[in-house]
Amino acid sequence: MTKKFILTENNMPDKWYNIQADMPNPLKPALHPGTKLPAGPEDFAPLFPMELIKQEVSKERWIQIPDPVRDAYLLWRPTPMIRALALEKALGTTAKIYYKYEGTSPTGSHKPNTAIPQAYYNKQEGVKKLATETGAGQWGSSLAFACQHFGLECTVFMVKVSFEQKPYRKNLMEIFKAKVIASPSTTTEAGKKILAQFPDTPGSLGIAISEAVEVAAKDGDTRYSLGSVLNHVLMHQTIIGLEAEKQFEMADDYPDILVGCFGGGSNFAGYTFPFLRHKIAGKKMRIIASEPAACPTLTRGKFAYDFGDTVGMTPLMPMHTLGRGFVPSSIHAGGLRYHGAAPLCSQLLQDKLIEAVAYKQKECFESALLFARTEGIVPAPEASHVIHAVIKEALKCKAAGEKKTIGFNLCGHGHFDMSAYDAYLSGKMQDYEMSDEELKKNLADLPPVPMPA
Amino acid sequence: MTKKFILTENNMPDKWYNIQADMPNPLKPALHPGTKLPAGPEDFAPLFPMELIKQEVSKERWIQIPDPVRDAYLLWRPTPMIRALALEKALGTTAKIYYKYEGTSPTGSHKPNTAIPQAYYNKQEGVKKLATETGAGQWGSSLAFACQHFGLECTVFMVKVSFEQKPYRKNLMEIFKAKVIASPSTTTEAGKKILAQFPDTPGSLGIAISEAVEVAAKDGDTRYSLGSVLNHVLMHQTIIGLEAEKQFEMADDYPDILVGCFGGGSNFAGYTFPFLRHKIAGKKMRIIASEPAACPTLTRGKFAYDFGDTVGMTPLMPMHTLGRGFVPSSIHAGGLRYHGAAPLCSQLLQDKLIEAVAYKQKECFESALLFARTEGIVPAPEASHVIHAVIKEALKCKAAGEKKTIGFNLCGHGHFDMSAYDAYLSGKMQDYEMSDEELKKNLADLPPVPMPA
Repeated sequence: MTKKFILTENNMPDKWYNIQADMPNPLKPALHPGTKLPAGPEDFAPLFPMELIKQEVSKERWIQIPDPVRDAYLLWRPTPMIRALALEKALGTTAKIYYKYEGTSPTGSHKPNTAIPQAYYNKQEGVKKLATETGAGQWGSSLAFACQHFGLECTVFMVKVSFEQKPYRKNLMEIFKAKVIASPSTTTEAGKKILAQFPDTPGSLGIAISEAVEVAAKDGDTRYSLGSVLNHVLMHQTIIGLEAEKQFEMADDYPDILVGCFGGGSNFAGYTFPFLRHKIAGKKMRIIASEPAACPTLTRGKFAYDFGDTVGMTPLMPMHTLGRGFVPSSIHAGGLRYHGAAPLCSQLLQDKLIEAVAYKQKECFESALLFARTEGIVPAPEASHVIHAVIKEALKCKAAGEKKTIGFNLCGHGHFDMSAYDAYLSGKMQDYEMSDEELKKNLADLPPVPMPA
Repeated sequence: MTKKFILTENNMPDKWYNIQADMPNPLKPALHPGTKLPAGPEDFAPLFPMELIKQEVSKERWIQIPDPVRDAYLLWRPTPMIRALALEKALGTTAKIYYKYEGTSPTGSHKPNTAIPQAYYNKQEGVKKLATETGAGQWGSSLAFACQHFGLECTVFMVKVSFEQKPYRKNLMEIFKAKVIASPSTTTEAGKKILAQFPDTPGSLGIAISEAVEVAAKDGDTRYSLGSVLNHVLMHQTIIGLEAEKQFEMADDYPDILVGCFGGGSNFAGYTFPFLRHKIAGKKMRIIASEPAACPTLTRGKFAYDFGDTVGMTPLMPMHTLGRGFVPSSIHAGGLRYHGAAPLCSQLLQDKLIEAVAYKQKECFESALLFARTEGIVPAPEASHVIHAVIKEALKCKAAGEKKTIGFNLCGHGHFDMSAYDAYLSGKMQDYEMSDEELKKNLADLPPVPMPA
């Protein structure tokens, strides 16, 4: 008997949860890229509207969701939570598995949860245009949708290899009237500099961020928007976990293990932080981030101050990083290819409140196929990492005869990613794992993270 | 303020509505292809399980949805109904517009609503394998999903031009373990015969049906499954309209005009038939089918007995048809390209209980873009036809200052159809309208429909 937990409009949360209110060790400050002194609100003002800067440093536990944002959320939220009975049966596990499903949004992923409030606050403060970067295109299409919703212009620097190989997300952005530019491009100084040095580069998120930040910094009408990593972005995503909490209550159950796939950290944080506050308060649970072996930020990166972009225009952030020069392998099929990890998640990993695992892409696709063939939903390649980690945990429960409850967030559908499944099914997909030499080269010259004052 | 009407699990209908109980003029019988006498259950037995044959001819008003089918429906149902406030505002219309959204299903369209019960009844009767046809691939992927859900094998004959130009739906079928064959193929006598005559044919649904029917007829373990047109298929889709009725009640509103896009008729019927029963009982409302000018079955086809397939293996059905030799233009971007119309819809059109309109594809895409840019959801190309018709009606209301309520079913998202949007946005899309000569040639030699006994 299918177990689905449906929230109605009235049950949608009206506040976001800010984990900065509850962290045992506060975040270390971002540093000004020039002076290397703690960055203040004025340093962020050219890039972000003041309300988002306030959220970035707020220690308030609950932040009210503005009515126009709630209103836009209602176009697809609340999202369902479903017990994966068919998957449990196929695994023969004693564990119970529940998944929250974010693929019902207009762009098919969780990204609009932050795109909508970001566009809203910018509009409120008179901004005319947003600039951003995108890799596989889930963030770019979501920001394009949000800008269109609130009447802002949108420019997206799309990592060149995706721009060329995956035209469909680009088409989606253009449907929402965004201007999409292959990155690195000749429209920015940052892009020109990279192209002069590496004319054949496939591009990277770090490079595309440099371009978008430059555009925002130079144009008074334009601000910059980031789809993950920053504190306010992660907080906007907590609507996922807050809904899931209510749904676990409907199910009369509670998770022992929570798992999220990990790129920059927003999907992981959005789902797990509302539960993590109870762990901080003493409740027993494990919280696991699952990342690709091709981009092992949390498991093999260094906790250090690093730039958010490749060129070095953003403030320095305290985070697990593979080094800002990291260019991910173009054979890696999905997103989850950013060199850094959200500072909030990095700090929580340092504090051992969360764990991290890394998996190769072929084993993840195998798990994603099992999920599609049992639960019916084809996961986005990014989400294949969470599914693989969940299956591993469920099989451990089976081996130990434990009746644990596992929860995860299925952050998006794979309807735009059929070519990756085709590659897997036809045996053409390759695995890639970062070598020690590559890691060492990327990490060279990163300054250590200073101790908190 | 977003107005969304969410049904919970307990509010999902537990019966389908069978319009055959309420039609003022009953359906004319299907005829045996050889004898031309009314076909009996035994004529359909090689193709369909007995329970579906019973549903095909039933006059019971309500048919219970079996628990395992309800259970599978719950994976994505009930689906939301949303008031299109942003679209209304963009049009400046005095009309209210509500849309039901079926794009949240595992395959992104309404098709699983009938794929699931068809797979279920076949499984119940010991069938091992289903054969079917698909055009753009929405039906094939949905039946593949349903077969996987109930543990049946699935073979899909996919119209060759789609097989070659649109690999993504094929990949989706393969994820669900279906065997996908480009049609016409050399695996069947029907396919060989067509290929001998027209070696370069792009294929058609009618040809693919001939192949699938042949496979089912020849193999005792295999049955045939059709994604539209037949009475039981349309009935399974009434879950859409039955949910919408409850949602209009929640909205404290009732539709004056209902619109559906029209290919074979199942999406149109599924949404409108539950309301149509009240029209038959005297309630005033208009019910409009919107079809492509490239395949104008209802608006320009002839009401006649015709075969459901190209070769002439199926029973003869009383329907509006463009002639079974019809091969749709390959420049037409979406589905909605079948030569015939559901007999139920054909009879209701004869009885003037429904109306039909036809539109060209470029005007439909223009309307679809307006919808995407206001409501945020990118419609499937098929659904662009319903949106265009709704906008036309809403603008008529505006001109007349009428406050009518318009309802429609958004039958699927366009995430698999970005190349069609790309063609439109880059100015490469062409319009196509069937010429009188082409129509005349196709319709030659169709027998008239005899009067009912």
